[in-house]
Amino acid sequence: MRIMRVEKTLVSTNRIAEMGHRPLLVVQEKEGGTRSVAVDAVGCIPGDWVICVGSSAAREAAGSKDYPSDLTIIGIIDNWAPA
Amino acid sequence: MRIMRVEKTLVSTNRIAEMGHRPLLVVQEKEGGTRSVAVDAVGCIPGDWVICVGSSAAREAAGSKDYPSDLTIIGIIDNWAPA
Amino acid sequence: MRIMRVEKTLVSTNRIAEMGHRPLLVVQEKEGGTRSVAVDAVGCIPGDWVICVGSSAAREAAGSKDYPSDLTIIGIIDNWAPA
Amino acid sequence: MRIMRVEKTLVSTNRIAEMGHRPLLVVQEKEGGTRSVAVDAVGCIPGDWVICVGSSAAREAAGSKDYPSDLTIIGIIDNWAPA
Amino acid sequence: MRIMRVEKTLVSTNRIAEMGHRPLLVVQEKEGGTRSVAVDAVGCIPGDWVICVGSSAAREAAGSKDYPSDLTIIGIIDNWAPA
Repeated sequence: MRIMRVEKTLVSTNRIAEMGHRPLLVVQEKEGGTRSVAVDAVGCIPGDWVICVGSSAAREAAGSKDYPSDLTIIGIIDNWAPA
Repeated sequence: MRIMRVEKTLVSTNRIAEMGHRPLLVVQEKEGGTRSVAVDAVGCIPGDWVICVGSSAAREAAGSKDYPSDLTIIGIIDNWAPA
Repeated sequence: MRIMRVEKTLVSTNRIAEMGHRPLLVVQEKEGGTRSVAVDAVGCIPGDWVICVGSSAAREAAGSKDYPSDLTIIGIIDNWAPA
Repeated sequence: MRIMRVEKTLVSTNRIAEMGHRPLLVVQEKEGGTRSVAVDAVGCIPGDWVICVGSSAAREAAGSKDYPSDLTIIGIIDNWAPA
Repeated sequence: MRIMRVEKTLVSTNRIAEMGHRPLLVVQEKEGGTRSVAVDAVGCIPGDWVICVGSSAAREAAGSKDYPSDLTIIGIIDNWAPA
């Protein structure tokens, strides 16, 4: 799993129906790094350091075997000091 | 999911039948970066910033569990300011 | 999907039986880049720019759900000008 | 599989229920490299060099086909001299 | 599939039972590059240049749908001249 920081919410009005109303968050591994989009399964706020799961595991973690996610937030890290 | 920008349509006359008539788009994470091909599931135009899903989720998002995609556009981002 | 260029055929006499007689091609994203091996599902020749699918989609695209591929050529690009 | 070194335990109080009580460890391929989170399936201690499996194999290796992992420690290397 | 060179055997006494007695080999794409671990399904010796399959295909190639591998050697390349 990857350790990432939540930056903000992402709004996508025009999207496929299968995404439902799950919140989408912009995350990144480090300041200035590539930004990715993750589905929030725990309830995060900007600034949180979180655990993101990818691969096929991201789907069920987002709610169902059919959910279209390849990156899902599955936990908030209690204390994290980035390198 | 990855955040990518739509560059243009890709034409491939000689392709496997399973691809059907789904539009294929050239996308890239940033200007000058590596270009990839994504299946369009929402209806994009060049210049759009979009959400692309990979892994096994890309298949169903493209229409069926058997569709041969590993990168599918599942949403258009309303407002995006690249870093 | 990745955009790659076909370099040449790869010969592997000692291989697992599940690979059958599908042609294996050496491909690369750009001159001098890392070379990968892809299963050819469309009929390419050296110099072609092709669309390669990875992940679990590579398996069925190569002929069956059980085929041992993680990179399969699913289309030849009609016109491609590398960056 | 990737060869990684165990750094420490990771604590995440707020996480999805599917994660259960499996220990989570911070691992990295080399000193100063990106740190990832792996599920421990063998019983490691900080400093161990371990074999980590990713992809869908990480799930069953963590205990069940439904476990939300994309990186699971499946073995401790007896002797390892990093390059 | 990735083109890799076999470096040596890897010994892991403490590992999960699902790994059985399949030989594990240290492989790398180029001298000095990151070293990975692959399951040997063909019978290699150090110095061989081999074809490694990843993703879910690595599992069946290693012997069964349940085998915990994400990188399996499926063929030895007859002649290979690294770039």
